[in-house]
Amino acid sequence: MKMPEFNLRIPGPVPLPCEVREALSRDMIDHRGPEFAALFDEITEGLKYVFQTRYDILILTSSGTGGLEAALVNVLSPGERVLAVINGFFGERWFEIANAFGLEAIPLRFPLGSGADPEEVRKAIRKAYPCKAVLITHNETSTGVTNDLKAIAEAVRSLENPPLILVDAVSSLGAIDLRPDEWGCDVVVTASQKALMAPPGLSLISVSPRAWEAVEKASLPRFYWDFRKAREYANRRQTPFTPALTVLFGLRESLKLIREEGLDRIFARHREIAEFTRASIKSLGLRLFPEERWASNTVTAVRVPEGLRAEEIIMRMREEHATIIAGGQGELKGKILRIAHIGRVSREDMARAIEVLSKVLKNV
Amino acid sequence: MKMPEFNLRIPGPVPLPCEVREALSRDMIDHRGPEFAALFDEITEGLKYVFQTRYDILILTSSGTGGLEAALVNVLSPGERVLAVINGFFGERWFEIANAFGLEAIPLRFPLGSGADPEEVRKAIRKAYPCKAVLITHNETSTGVTNDLKAIAEAVRSLENPPLILVDAVSSLGAIDLRPDEWGCDVVVTASQKALMAPPGLSLISVSPRAWEAVEKASLPRFYWDFRKAREYANRRQTPFTPALTVLFGLRESLKLIREEGLDRIFARHREIAEFTRASIKSLGLRLFPEERWASNTVTAVRVPEGLRAEEIIMRMREEHATIIAGGQGELKGKILRIAHIGRVSREDMARAIEVLSKVLKNV
Repeated sequence: MKMPEFNLRIPGPVPLPCEVREALSRDMIDHRGPEFAALFDEITEGLKYVFQTRYDILILTSSGTGGLEAALVNVLSPGERVLAVINGFFGERWFEIANAFGLEAIPLRFPLGSGADPEEVRKAIRKAYPCKAVLITHNETSTGVTNDLKAIAEAVRSLENPPLILVDAVSSLGAIDLRPDEWGCDVVVTASQKALMAPPGLSLISVSPRAWEAVEKASLPRFYWDFRKAREYANRRQTPFTPALTVLFGLRESLKLIREEGLDRIFARHREIAEFTRASIKSLGLRLFPEERWASNTVTAVRVPEGLRAEEIIMRMREEHATIIAGGQGELKGKILRIAHIGRVSREDMARAIEVLSKVLKNV
Repeated sequence: MKMPEFNLRIPGPVPLPCEVREALSRDMIDHRGPEFAALFDEITEGLKYVFQTRYDILILTSSGTGGLEAALVNVLSPGERVLAVINGFFGERWFEIANAFGLEAIPLRFPLGSGADPEEVRKAIRKAYPCKAVLITHNETSTGVTNDLKAIAEAVRSLENPPLILVDAVSSLGAIDLRPDEWGCDVVVTASQKALMAPPGLSLISVSPRAWEAVEKASLPRFYWDFRKAREYANRRQTPFTPALTVLFGLRESLKLIREEGLDRIFARHREIAEFTRASIKSLGLRLFPEERWASNTVTAVRVPEGLRAEEIIMRMREEHATIIAGGQGELKGKILRIAHIGRVSREDMARAIEVLSKVLKNV
């Protein structure tokens, strides 16, 4: 197989390290046997490290969206009120899921390109009493914004009888600091194909003791997503249903790489590369989409210069320079470009991508 | 990596052909780009061949159980009556899922080891009017029984205003003849890791026009499983959410292998190997679990001889001879052994497995 050397700079799936790719070609094993149990233990332990948690970790075979749906159906009952903090496409999607399941979801929207204001979140919850849960997207991939989850969680937890804090950490966990136990995040959902540097196919979820209490009381219908089943099988070092084994083989290797590099160093690398990316973008005379104080360390959103077509820029970067970036989603379609720097990424990867962008901009 | 040569004879995941394994180590691609669209087309076309259908095919990232849940939540509304045809663990599970989602599920049980009787299914539906859907497990992996789906579907369709026919074809499709269009099966669910010879992580589903009408009226809550979203994105040659790309890379190759061998030849191979397996089992003085006329062509269930422990037989086959077979599930735990012959399997694989079984039986 000959393949061109692509520079894949979309916000997931991310390019895979060699060690991960090699592990993927392993043949199948018995997912109810002792070899699987060892794999399960190793991965669970590795995930606890990356999640910085002592809470239970559950492994579901699905995309990240499946994990977000699972979070809702496991801790809530029909008609219960939740606050959906929204500042982009993924916040909107989680709000939509809540609506689809008959929750009374109250949207709290912030302008695209801004982060959520902790004090406003707190006020909105007080107004929405009794509010059972608050849904927060840690890193809003669609706008390149990272919400100040720590401050938001603190504001929420300062309330009497605070709602559960449910976090979409799909494009942050393992790249941007997130401490479920310390910050009081009850359910944190991520996926295998972002900072975890494995292929897509798994969602990974931490569940706090407070969330477990809610799981027992919740009455939304669930079977495949049932956290209780996942925990029961986890105690036997299995998953309830046949898991995406190949993705687990890859994840075991990527978790080793993450341990070797160390979380603090990984966070610092993402921060530095993001700063470098933003500085380079600005030096081309381009404008960042988000207010810079909210700018994400995993994806940079750039305004499309007046008079140019996003689709054409993306197409030419891909066709002429084997560099893959993403466009805007929803109402930002055509208005922004998104260049990711999450997972296996170096300053050189970004320098190459930005050079390509610069070349293409000169010729469109 | 050195790995012993295992003879993996559990009913899925199945051993992967080399061509599939090689494809798994590919690096990630943009799941919203043109390369993915080509992959999506190729896989959809290959699946239509294996499904022997012109109906729509949907691809979900989940295990087969997820696909079975998806089938229910897409065509039914809370409180609707369904008939669950049950003759084993997987039939029970689907019944459980129906209950979890607030359907009025009526179980129609047949003895373990027997197939479902078409006439009794028809009568039960008449008694249960209005019955919105009937759930049938084509091949009951837990007992090694294949139901006569064609005859059951015919009996059901002979009724006035017949219910939708929903089929769990996880351990049959691609190994045992199944014709959704010709037989009138409205939703047929399979998974990637059985006869399709790819790793687990995808469920594949065919949806008839009559099922699509039901999808429009159904009101069970759904988002991740929503067939309408899957179809809308399929029209753009994408999936709604990031799919298990690596599994798709593998599936593309296995579908090519299936085309090369040809479905008829694959069905015949499974039939011959199953017959060989049953004959060999009997020649060892062992007894088949199911009545032989119902015996499955993808998995053979064998009674554990009086006085022997299933767990020990399985453990010694694994530890001493690198041969992995399965035990019984649910109430059959400890009572049967299950040896699979589905997907990439030859007569030699089975001869080796049975020789090992014979050796171990002499020494326990």
